Amino acid sequence: MSLNNSVNVALIGAGRIGSFHAESVVYRLADANLAAIADPAPGTANQLAEKLGCSFATTDPKTVLSDPDIHAVIIATPARYHSNLVAAAAEAGKAVFCEKPMALTIEEANRAIDAAKSANVPLQVGFNRRWDKAFSEGHEAIANGQVGTPQLLRSLTRDPGPFGADPARIPNWTIFYETLIHDFDTLLWLNIGAKPVEVYAVADALIRPDFKEAGHLDTAVVTIRFDNGAIAVADANFSALYGYDVRGEVFGSEGMVTMGDARRSSMTLFNSQGVSCDTFRLDAHHFLDAYTAQLASFINTVRTGEVKGPGGEDARSALKIALACIQSVKIKAPVSLG
Amino acid sequence: MSLNNSVNVALIGAGRIGSFHAESVVYRLADANLAAIADPAPGTANQLAEKLGCSFATTDPKTVLSDPDIHAVIIATPARYHSNLVAAAAEAGKAVFCEKPMALTIEEANRAIDAAKSANVPLQVGFNRRWDKAFSEGHEAIANGQVGTPQLLRSLTRDPGPFGADPARIPNWTIFYETLIHDFDTLLWLNIGAKPVEVYAVADALIRPDFKEAGHLDTAVVTIRFDNGAIAVADANFSALYGYDVRGEVFGSEGMVTMGDARRSSMTLFNSQGVSCDTFRLDAHHFLDAYTAQLASFINTVRTGEVKGPGGEDARSALKIALACIQSVKIKAPVSLG
Amino acid sequence: MSLNNSVNVALIGAGRIGSFHAESVVYRLADANLAAIADPAPGTANQLAEKLGCSFATTDPKTVLSDPDIHAVIIATPARYHSNLVAAAAEAGKAVFCEKPMALTIEEANRAIDAAKSANVPLQVGFNRRWDKAFSEGHEAIANGQVGTPQLLRSLTRDPGPFGADPARIPNWTIFYETLIHDFDTLLWLNIGAKPVEVYAVADALIRPDFKEAGHLDTAVVTIRFDNGAIAVADANFSALYGYDVRGEVFGSEGMVTMGDARRSSMTLFNSQGVSCDTFRLDAHHFLDAYTAQLASFINTVRTGEVKGPGGEDARSALKIALACIQSVKIKAPVSLG
Amino acid sequence: MSLNNSVNVALIGAGRIGSFHAESVVYRLADANLAAIADPAPGTANQLAEKLGCSFATTDPKTVLSDPDIHAVIIATPARYHSNLVAAAAEAGKAVFCEKPMALTIEEANRAIDAAKSANVPLQVGFNRRWDKAFSEGHEAIANGQVGTPQLLRSLTRDPGPFGADPARIPNWTIFYETLIHDFDTLLWLNIGAKPVEVYAVADALIRPDFKEAGHLDTAVVTIRFDNGAIAVADANFSALYGYDVRGEVFGSEGMVTMGDARRSSMTLFNSQGVSCDTFRLDAHHFLDAYTAQLASFINTVRTGEVKGPGGEDARSALKIALACIQSVKIKAPVSLG
Repeated sequence: MSLNNSVNVALIGAGRIGSFHAESVVYRLADANLAAIADPAPGTANQLAEKLGCSFATTDPKTVLSDPDIHAVIIATPARYHSNLVAAAAEAGKAVFCEKPMALTIEEANRAIDAAKSANVPLQVGFNRRWDKAFSEGHEAIANGQVGTPQLLRSLTRDPGPFGADPARIPNWTIFYETLIHDFDTLLWLNIGAKPVEVYAVADALIRPDFKEAGHLDTAVVTIRFDNGAIAVADANFSALYGYDVRGEVFGSEGMVTMGDARRSSMTLFNSQGVSCDTFRLDAHHFLDAYTAQLASFINTVRTGEVKGPGGEDARSALKIALACIQSVKIKAPVSLG
Repeated sequence: MSLNNSVNVALIGAGRIGSFHAESVVYRLADANLAAIADPAPGTANQLAEKLGCSFATTDPKTVLSDPDIHAVIIATPARYHSNLVAAAAEAGKAVFCEKPMALTIEEANRAIDAAKSANVPLQVGFNRRWDKAFSEGHEAIANGQVGTPQLLRSLTRDPGPFGADPARIPNWTIFYETLIHDFDTLLWLNIGAKPVEVYAVADALIRPDFKEAGHLDTAVVTIRFDNGAIAVADANFSALYGYDVRGEVFGSEGMVTMGDARRSSMTLFNSQGVSCDTFRLDAHHFLDAYTAQLASFINTVRTGEVKGPGGEDARSALKIALACIQSVKIKAPVSLG
Repeated sequence: MSLNNSVNVALIGAGRIGSFHAESVVYRLADANLAAIADPAPGTANQLAEKLGCSFATTDPKTVLSDPDIHAVIIATPARYHSNLVAAAAEAGKAVFCEKPMALTIEEANRAIDAAKSANVPLQVGFNRRWDKAFSEGHEAIANGQVGTPQLLRSLTRDPGPFGADPARIPNWTIFYETLIHDFDTLLWLNIGAKPVEVYAVADALIRPDFKEAGHLDTAVVTIRFDNGAIAVADANFSALYGYDVRGEVFGSEGMVTMGDARRSSMTLFNSQGVSCDTFRLDAHHFLDAYTAQLASFINTVRTGEVKGPGGEDARSALKIALACIQSVKIKAPVSLG
Repeated sequence: MSLNNSVNVALIGAGRIGSFHAESVVYRLADANLAAIADPAPGTANQLAEKLGCSFATTDPKTVLSDPDIHAVIIATPARYHSNLVAAAAEAGKAVFCEKPMALTIEEANRAIDAAKSANVPLQVGFNRRWDKAFSEGHEAIANGQVGTPQLLRSLTRDPGPFGADPARIPNWTIFYETLIHDFDTLLWLNIGAKPVEVYAVADALIRPDFKEAGHLDTAVVTIRFDNGAIAVADANFSALYGYDVRGEVFGSEGMVTMGDARRSSMTLFNSQGVSCDTFRLDAHHFLDAYTAQLASFINTVRTGEVKGPGGEDARSALKIALACIQSVKIKAPVSLG
């Protein structure tokens, strides 16, 4: 496409995070245009389109993919539809941004990766943490050798509580497929050049034990061994009463970097109760700049062809760890990665 | 103007901060359009216009003001031209965003305020600190009574060093007119409803003592007493080797809030030297979000007519303190504000 | 003993930590008297006794135990002698403070515990972290229900580097027996009332891989599941280049507490490199107050009979986890605790 | 005195801080002995002596001074008696530790200094902040040139609130004589080698305005100019609801150090209210280690003759600033220091 024109972006899937991405396109990205919104739920696309001043709303993603004026799509549907949509969009010649997880099986992941390669379109995956200032500065410090060889790593995701969702409507293994997938990508990205060799996972239903028999898991701890000797731990929980807590730590032979802070600004209150700060309560607040930078990078990739963000292979690498976790929980033992 | 169209903004004065504002319009504001750039220095406007894809560049601000397609102007010239340009732009019916200080005398300030009132155009002044998250959260906490009645306040501005400017080219009293003016506005804004009654200022040329005789001042401390009893201190220095340092503190009968941190992210490095964080080295980095939010609010004001930011009266109130500081330094004694 | 007299304390084992404890008795405890020093290495006890003004030095611990003027002993020998000395001291009627680990097998631990019980003497074990202000405040917050039911816990020990010891002289499994034993006690203490049910440990020789075949381990990560559902992770490493790093974290249904900071004071330096703090480089510096409070509590126990610190049962509980870790590393699988 | 014996210390003045010092001698200093307590209020000395196991209590300080077994005295009476007692103790040949302020007039200060010199006894003054770890590390950094030449300094004292004292019983100008005297010493100590040349003070009764006419002052801000160009600000307030707040900041040509934190430990609580830490609520808690180190240094001086702490001249230098403050408040103008 011409570098002088605005990039026409279509959103597929107008749920919470999809709507947020659409708002980013409209309000926070100067050189992108929200050209279409598709969502199969009747009225959903229309409602968002009206709010955001977008003239093309549909319940059928295919009409979006067949529109030659659309340069790129943002896929933010439920995870089980991701890989098929990535493949269809790629085959239609669209640049693709897909929310995590890009796929739920290795076969799905392979198909999506192959489709993008065959169509020669960029494929970026929504590992937004890589665009956070603290995490990207940490990555740079590690790349510069400032912690030496990584030996102990930590990454965690604690979703803001109280947990109000209906456990019956959350697919089993979501904590690995959708939550910890972020941490797996983060650990793979921060432990530069290393490959995971063994995974051990424990998980439980500590917030809603009444749904444990139905397969609900809301708390998990994962140990990953890498081929450079480093040992990583990831943990997740669905109900952090203090807000959205995402942190990383890489300890190595020369030092350590830590990244992430739930405090939402430097404003600090001192009163008779002591010293306090308020926290981020939503991912969209915590990572507002990271989400914006992520899409800005994607838009730039659409314009220039230069891919900078995590792609299909990164999605597959993180997925492999998630799948090993599920296996580990099932067999209650560590699992080797081939 | 119609709420559905993009706001056409003209920049007058394409120096460092003006260019940065123009970039904000182009890259970070989705509903504004950089329609023109004026700068009397030959080639300056052209160069920036080319870089930012703006088709209208001129050395004559008047041609901008007479263009009916321009809805709003950003004035970022040297300070001595501000008030006249505010008046001219207002008289031309343009919404006005003016960098601080809006004026260098009370008469100038009055004229600018009156012109905007007569023309019924919004006039916003570049006290960007009000849009910083930490400062705005602090203001909200104070407004909510969380520190009780303010008793001791502090605001400081330490510009990033090393100081490399030519002191001979910096107008005398710049530390009060241009640097501490931010702190005066901050203190007036945070000490809600209070009026300053007395000012005492000391200032010196500690970075470049060789220019002291020529009137250069690079370090200053100001004490302000308010009619609610509160005592405020502002300080400034032109050469903070650790970066751009802006902090505020309000201590009251029920507690205290502190705002501002030179650390640029939560990324923290632990190594054989100890624990360290990197700092913001530029105002444009420290206050990137605040500068963007400031202009976004101005653009919104242009669209809706609802003024949210600091206006001409706020500029005049801060100026009064700056003028009292200059008087205090001259007479080496406290100065009463009428 | 009479409450009015100073407590006469004998040190058995005048190595690094023993000497430090002796100095605490002499310089930092007002109501204790260093009455004797025993160390089998010729000259060692003499040298320390001379330095500290203690008149009784010997190479034979038995002469100390048979001295009726000695009220209490501090056992700080190599770990393999601990349990026998505890038993002997108890049988001699002395109050006993024993460094960790109190024993290397459950049988040894049982014997020491039984001896103290039979002799009706207090037995306190050197889990000094319990006396650290941050950790004790964290424990109190947990006990008060401020984090709700614990779900995720973390405890870590990173010894100050660079690692300069000869790996050949460090007994195998030291990282579990001597280093992580602190973390196991901390986790048992902070997860109030819960019992460990399963342990999984991974460990490696990442600092000195050349000694891995000889059994050397310098990096370890341990996952512990408790009967209240909580999942804890402990990690350790022998070479933190940034100093002595001990931290704890307890996340629960109502919130989280974090404890521990390597920064040695609030003094913060801002310079052209950014913002920095120096760190604690030695356990004796990091935990100076905790070590002193630990012995003060022991001395008080000797005077009053009221036991406040961790005892033989606590030592045995932590040892059980260490033994399970060793088993887990050997079989490369999780180990159930009966 | 012999280096092998315990130092016999007498307390004169058994009020709050005197009693605390006595406890430090008894419980926290191993090589000092609380030999006597004198307080003119009937029963006061007796009560404390009984509690601390001290056998000599009296209402007459003279009987203490004439006792040849007493090596040193701690003077902790109301300030107006300090200088006379220093002189009397020195004349009796006792080493003297005197709480701040050592004197209320320059004449008094001179007399005390001269008496100690004539008697050749050590005289140390209770500027305990110098012994705080953060402040002493900050001083060391400044002495090592790490901030370059000081240009802007800050020192503050906010006493823990709520303020419950009877203003009628607090001598006028206490905020300068007793509170800010700490900050004056701190600033003189941190601005190494510089001399104050001008003082401007403002003060008010903001906590208890009903006592302002009676001369009560509970809030003050002081600006001090030094002969090296540095400008310092000290502030004080009697009612910090969040606890005891003591901070310092030295900004110079090469960087900045900050010192002091009201947080009482690294224990941090994250809950639905956000992130919080508890604070120090008492000077005796905030500066427990500093107070102990201060007396330990004094005891060491008594034993060795080597004076390390602040002496009579330091007390006089700080007093000069306090007196200039009082003058400045009276004349509402800056005051030159000769």
